[in-house]
Amino acid sequence: MQYSYLELAQLLISQIQSEQYRVGERLPSVRTLAKMYQLSPSTAVRCYRHLENQGFINAQSKSGMYVADWKLLYSQNYSLQAKAGLYSSSGAIQLPRNKAAMVLTQQPSPKGDAHHNKHRIAPPVYEELMSLQHRMSQLYELTEQPLKWQLHLASADPNWYACKKLAQLLKQALVVHPHLLGQYPNGSGWPELKQALSQWMRSFGLDLSENELLITNGSTEATSLALQAVAQPGDCIAVESPVYFGVLQTIEKLGLKAIEIPCNAGTGLSLEALKYALEHQGSIKAVVAMSSFQNPTGSCMPDSHKKKLLKLIGKHQIMLIEDDVFGDLSHQVERPTPIKVWDKHERVIYIGSCSKSLAPGFRIGWIAGGRYHAAIKSLKLSYSLVSPLLEQVALAEFIKGGDMALHLRQLRQRLASNVGLAVKAVAQYFPYGTKVISPAGGWWLWLELPLSISSLSLLKLAIANSISFTPGMVFTNTGKFNHHLRINYARPWVEIEMALQKLGQLAHQQSTNH
Amino acid sequence: MQYSYLELAQLLISQIQSEQYRVGERLPSVRTLAKMYQLSPSTAVRCYRHLENQGFINAQSKSGMYVADWKLLYSQNYSLQAKAGLYSSSGAIQLPRNKAAMVLTQQPSPKGDAHHNKHRIAPPVYEELMSLQHRMSQLYELTEQPLKWQLHLASADPNWYACKKLAQLLKQALVVHPHLLGQYPNGSGWPELKQALSQWMRSFGLDLSENELLITNGSTEATSLALQAVAQPGDCIAVESPVYFGVLQTIEKLGLKAIEIPCNAGTGLSLEALKYALEHQGSIKAVVAMSSFQNPTGSCMPDSHKKKLLKLIGKHQIMLIEDDVFGDLSHQVERPTPIKVWDKHERVIYIGSCSKSLAPGFRIGWIAGGRYHAAIKSLKLSYSLVSPLLEQVALAEFIKGGDMALHLRQLRQRLASNVGLAVKAVAQYFPYGTKVISPAGGWWLWLELPLSISSLSLLKLAIANSISFTPGMVFTNTGKFNHHLRINYARPWVEIEMALQKLGQLAHQQSTNH
Repeated sequence: MQYSYLELAQLLISQIQSEQYRVGERLPSVRTLAKMYQLSPSTAVRCYRHLENQGFINAQSKSGMYVADWKLLYSQNYSLQAKAGLYSSSGAIQLPRNKAAMVLTQQPSPKGDAHHNKHRIAPPVYEELMSLQHRMSQLYELTEQPLKWQLHLASADPNWYACKKLAQLLKQALVVHPHLLGQYPNGSGWPELKQALSQWMRSFGLDLSENELLITNGSTEATSLALQAVAQPGDCIAVESPVYFGVLQTIEKLGLKAIEIPCNAGTGLSLEALKYALEHQGSIKAVVAMSSFQNPTGSCMPDSHKKKLLKLIGKHQIMLIEDDVFGDLSHQVERPTPIKVWDKHERVIYIGSCSKSLAPGFRIGWIAGGRYHAAIKSLKLSYSLVSPLLEQVALAEFIKGGDMALHLRQLRQRLASNVGLAVKAVAQYFPYGTKVISPAGGWWLWLELPLSISSLSLLKLAIANSISFTPGMVFTNTGKFNHHLRINYARPWVEIEMALQKLGQLAHQQSTNH
Repeated sequence: MQYSYLELAQLLISQIQSEQYRVGERLPSVRTLAKMYQLSPSTAVRCYRHLENQGFINAQSKSGMYVADWKLLYSQNYSLQAKAGLYSSSGAIQLPRNKAAMVLTQQPSPKGDAHHNKHRIAPPVYEELMSLQHRMSQLYELTEQPLKWQLHLASADPNWYACKKLAQLLKQALVVHPHLLGQYPNGSGWPELKQALSQWMRSFGLDLSENELLITNGSTEATSLALQAVAQPGDCIAVESPVYFGVLQTIEKLGLKAIEIPCNAGTGLSLEALKYALEHQGSIKAVVAMSSFQNPTGSCMPDSHKKKLLKLIGKHQIMLIEDDVFGDLSHQVERPTPIKVWDKHERVIYIGSCSKSLAPGFRIGWIAGGRYHAAIKSLKLSYSLVSPLLEQVALAEFIKGGDMALHLRQLRQRLASNVGLAVKAVAQYFPYGTKVISPAGGWWLWLELPLSISSLSLLKLAIANSISFTPGMVFTNTGKFNHHLRINYARPWVEIEMALQKLGQLAHQQSTNH
């Protein structure tokens, strides 16, 4: 086989990554390389040039090619390491010179490279944030940007999670269950995890037996399964507005129609509006609601509202899909009560997840499907068969061992300590007229800027200044919320304060420009 | 809070499982227990009786209650450990007396217990195996049975997988990436895994770049995403017949219609029949085919057939969804070539997975969606967002470190050594007229029994004799294959031989009874 320059480059990259060539080590000369792989010297030159562009090697004039500090490069291009690195104490990250140039100038590059570059550092296409089809992938691109303050992320600071303890429990699981990896998982979830969850939920009044629970690949799969169980293509689903953009996309992909019901930052979903919609729109099959600490507003429905909502859906004989992924993140001593607690007629499909509160790196959610549970279990077999057990075993031990209670206490304290400061900082740094309501749980701040400031324009400016946030318009299909933005304040306060100060300045600039 | 007897039992079970009470340890007396939890002695008695029924404790007359060897109990009731235990060298498993009685007699039990028992040992409802809706869950129930020879399973013997090495790589991943669990995974898969897969596939001629790959939750999710991308509810999908029952269920859940095209145990999908179907059925949008070592027949299409199939789908401008999960398990030196290799027009959606060949406990698959790749990526966001990274990191290292090649060599040798023996054993032990073709890869044996023997009746008899297999009728919606059965021979030969001998005897019995 004769290699093309790109194939040879790929081979060398894998050798560099497996440290057959170590950082700083000298690579074969062009002549030697060409000989080794029976290529023309010009192909070898092209290959090295490609690797240099990719940041894997450095040319040192006359003395040859050397392996570059490519791990640094990786730490900026791939979100996983990037996120860890971005919040290190060292502050700003140094981009390798050529890489930085690419980010800033987006120069055209040969076709082969374009593919790679696009994958690694494509900036979000701001216009596509408007498109329901593309907004999730564009927000993902945002995460891959080498930004200093990523306030759009959907998790807390990695150091705020019990990574070490979870790693230890994973290792333990592998010892205790030596055949865990050599066997197909089976059934509706690891029985001990379902037991542990059942017991945990009982601590806040939610009485669900093991048999009522199904383990899913996060709350995304749970929501998708619930929607498919309760509705047929063409049906309508009532959602909060603003609402997590993922729900809008899932609804659309399933051929359903989202009916957006206003949700205010204080008491959540407007029951009056929902009542009106239910009376005037016959085909609403379910309401999807995040009743405690809604994404993005942070609102929490008072118990009286929750009970009224339950009555309302009962009266109209539809289902409520209750997404409780933020419920555990109350800033107060008491955790809010899920609506499911009062559900006597199996009309509430309850969804929980460990992705927000416990371990974003696990993809474990759970669902209690009420009267649709059997249908949901059957659907799960068609969509992903089963969920992997390793993480389930570790999570079961984490809960049973009391680590969950301990971890949540710390995380909630951290959030509670940040929220007041964040609200104050917004008041201090943002233009006059900016509105914000202090949430009682979760980690979102939902800001309404003065009408003169577009949050999309602010985002462009912010990204040029190494700050990201989520613009309001992605949380709706209606074209509203153009002056809103969502911010995650679950990071060490010094970082959040710097970011809010900077962002406030940029908002002032925008305001003056208009 | 005052506990009910069931709640108290649950609490004690969790204390026993976390070894606060160890095996053999004496539990508090009824009187003490009642005092500890402020309950009536009769509630404490009910609680202990429940635990005894569940096999967690033993009563020793006059001396009190002691923690039973409950881990043994677990090893029979939960498939995970069960599967490991069942194939231990010790042979038959001793059921605790009360448990065995439950299995055999299925006596009615108090309502509270019924729930638990149902979860743990419900036997399959044979009639429901006929129902597309229920057959998968019924086959799962089969896996949870405490049977000695589970020949229906979809993986090889747990000891035939590189569990130790994978566990070591998982531990390493947790050390190298200390924040892995504290961050949301992002994007279309761990870049190094996609690189490693890309390089691996190149070794058998399949040239797919990282950007052409998306990591999924196993091949089930991949298939579901592919079908949704290429077809709308109401459309038809051509599949092999017999075909893996999961595909039939997924097609049905998506509102699509399966068109079953005959597949023979030798050369696979009948191209003549497919051609006819395409010419007479306008709404076929795609063909799903397992071109190498099909499930259940084990057939492998010759290269000439594969190329003709590619031409045929090109001519009719439809897509081919090629499921290659068994391709790596060739019994010969050469691995068969996937059709995707010859696909110049992006008409083949290629699906791979590590669940069969490398690690059933991981739920990692991959898909190259051809002209539908962007649509598939977008759908994935709606169905499960992202796949967890931990297993991806370990798998990447497994492949890059050369362990995959080594492991596959061993696994393939084991399969190759069993297959000839298995075919011979069928000839020796089964009734005259039983047909079987020796497959060239994978681990399935597709048997056709004489017409006088129904495979469903044989299954009932077999299960009573601690053997399971998959009856032929679950591989179709047409009502065919009532005399067929699928057997997995990927277990140590002594076990397979004993099972085939026993099963052959039972088949003879059936044959004589008619």
